[in-house]
Amino acid sequence: MLILNQKQIESLLSRSEVLEAIEKAFNVFHEGNFNMPDRMHAHYDDITLLLMPCFTSEYFGTKLVSVNPKNQAIGKPSIYGNMILNDSETGEPLALLNGAALTAIRTGAVGATGMKYICKETSERIGIIGTGIQGFTQALFACVVRPVKRINVFDLDDKKLSDFINKLQEKLPEIEIHAMNSSEELVYESDIIVCATSSENPVIPNDPNLLKDKCFIGIGSYKPNMREFPDALFSQITKVWVDTPFAAKESGDIAMPLENNLLQENQVNTISNLVANKQYDQSGTSFFKSVGMALFDVVVAEYLYKKAIKENIGTQADL
Amino acid sequence: MLILNQKQIESLLSRSEVLEAIEKAFNVFHEGNFNMPDRMHAHYDDITLLLMPCFTSEYFGTKLVSVNPKNQAIGKPSIYGNMILNDSETGEPLALLNGAALTAIRTGAVGATGMKYICKETSERIGIIGTGIQGFTQALFACVVRPVKRINVFDLDDKKLSDFINKLQEKLPEIEIHAMNSSEELVYESDIIVCATSSENPVIPNDPNLLKDKCFIGIGSYKPNMREFPDALFSQITKVWVDTPFAAKESGDIAMPLENNLLQENQVNTISNLVANKQYDQSGTSFFKSVGMALFDVVVAEYLYKKAIKENIGTQADL
Repeated sequence: MLILNQKQIESLLSRSEVLEAIEKAFNVFHEGNFNMPDRMHAHYDDITLLLMPCFTSEYFGTKLVSVNPKNQAIGKPSIYGNMILNDSETGEPLALLNGAALTAIRTGAVGATGMKYICKETSERIGIIGTGIQGFTQALFACVVRPVKRINVFDLDDKKLSDFINKLQEKLPEIEIHAMNSSEELVYESDIIVCATSSENPVIPNDPNLLKDKCFIGIGSYKPNMREFPDALFSQITKVWVDTPFAAKESGDIAMPLENNLLQENQVNTISNLVANKQYDQSGTSFFKSVGMALFDVVVAEYLYKKAIKENIGTQADL
Repeated sequence: MLILNQKQIESLLSRSEVLEAIEKAFNVFHEGNFNMPDRMHAHYDDITLLLMPCFTSEYFGTKLVSVNPKNQAIGKPSIYGNMILNDSETGEPLALLNGAALTAIRTGAVGATGMKYICKETSERIGIIGTGIQGFTQALFACVVRPVKRINVFDLDDKKLSDFINKLQEKLPEIEIHAMNSSEELVYESDIIVCATSSENPVIPNDPNLLKDKCFIGIGSYKPNMREFPDALFSQITKVWVDTPFAAKESGDIAMPLENNLLQENQVNTISNLVANKQYDQSGTSFFKSVGMALFDVVVAEYLYKKAIKENIGTQADL
């Protein structure tokens, strides 16, 4: 069994190859050649354990994620994750991957795939609201799909904001990175706006004129009570693109507008329809909402596993 | 994260300590201080994937088992398994253990715990029907709980039978080990009879006199269509001891006699009632049926993890 930790995963990946893997995942999704059972939730005291299996024709995998919000108080991560990748023919376990690294990478690539298909090709200014690991990888992958010259960042926490910018500038030395004073300023100064917070209320002003002709990418909200985008967004768009139809139930960014009649179900479209047909929908104001799915994890884990074997990276453990 | 493979697990365990861990698991079960969600089944082509989480106050774990019966044709194991052990306070993953080794060990210890509580203390002759890994560990653990002088073994496959006996004799050089010509001879020559086959029909003759005053341990049947014990057994016993109440649904060895009115539901008792109260029920003919549960896996994984850390065994992988 091959063990791939965070550093090894980061050292071996090529972002453009991960983007290819995500496009492959959207094609598999479009063709329906996979089995992704509903994820299993289990609870004990402060811990939530999520088990997320998914099968494709060559590989299957299970991501195990445990969440304990109280860990922050003792200086530990609130989320731990691992992914076990198996051979779909025999069931043999092939690899164990750091789940946090895998999730951050695949989420970055899913957001950027959204940008590629629904944001204008000329978009040079990316705005990132939220300075966690997801915001970070959104910025990195955005630079692969668009000719990014400037990244604008906003967070309510000044310390997190400056740390994020310093870290991002190290990775992207040639790009101008600016701290914004408000989300209003950020939207105004950006062509593509990514929200990657855990907010329960919109993090963007409810102003239709501010939002007009911008491209919005929603990453943060993954529960029905979490919401990053304001009502005004839904007066500017004719459709919402999602990574999986489950987004309409799982994320408050779709579920609440649907409930409040600001959005109709037939306006919610799965972006695999664009990807599989190499079609683009980049005019006017646009919105892509991602909640993620285990299919992305398996396909990116497959890519990382194959590349690690080829480049002899990782630790072989005889299990 | 500590990686423990089969050899490392086998090298560090003490069978009497594993038996203590299983008694601890039965106590936890009796007190109800755990959360064991229904296991998740997923299917794809020839593969069945089982995800089995269980939480206890200090540790939780998830056993992932994949089954593909067609693997035998290509010389690979039909079952692969891994166990991930986590800290129950933070959720942090602590160890990855070989699931096959863990399952064999805990199943051996569960069977022997049954023997300790319901088989006569003077039992010197153990009969094992079925020469797979489960039969093997049943024999090893039986020797810890009873003054075993002789082990009788039967299998329909002569080659498997002689291989099993050679391998077992290496592990137990001071015990007489005999191949039996039939299951009838085996029962006749044994005080405790363990069935560890995947049979769908009784592997023991339907003869009440043959069964009288013997102690039977059922390990093999884990599906409603699998059955190892004959109807005659149920005319000889007043109760059945099980490791978990699920046994009545999961195993044909309980489900079929219940359905055929040879057994009543109130005759099915959970053996944790004996273990927790240090009571014994060793008179007459007796029967313990085990189907296993994730609680055993977690408690034995906890024991192995703690001991491995103490004795510096295993491979530390920075994940």
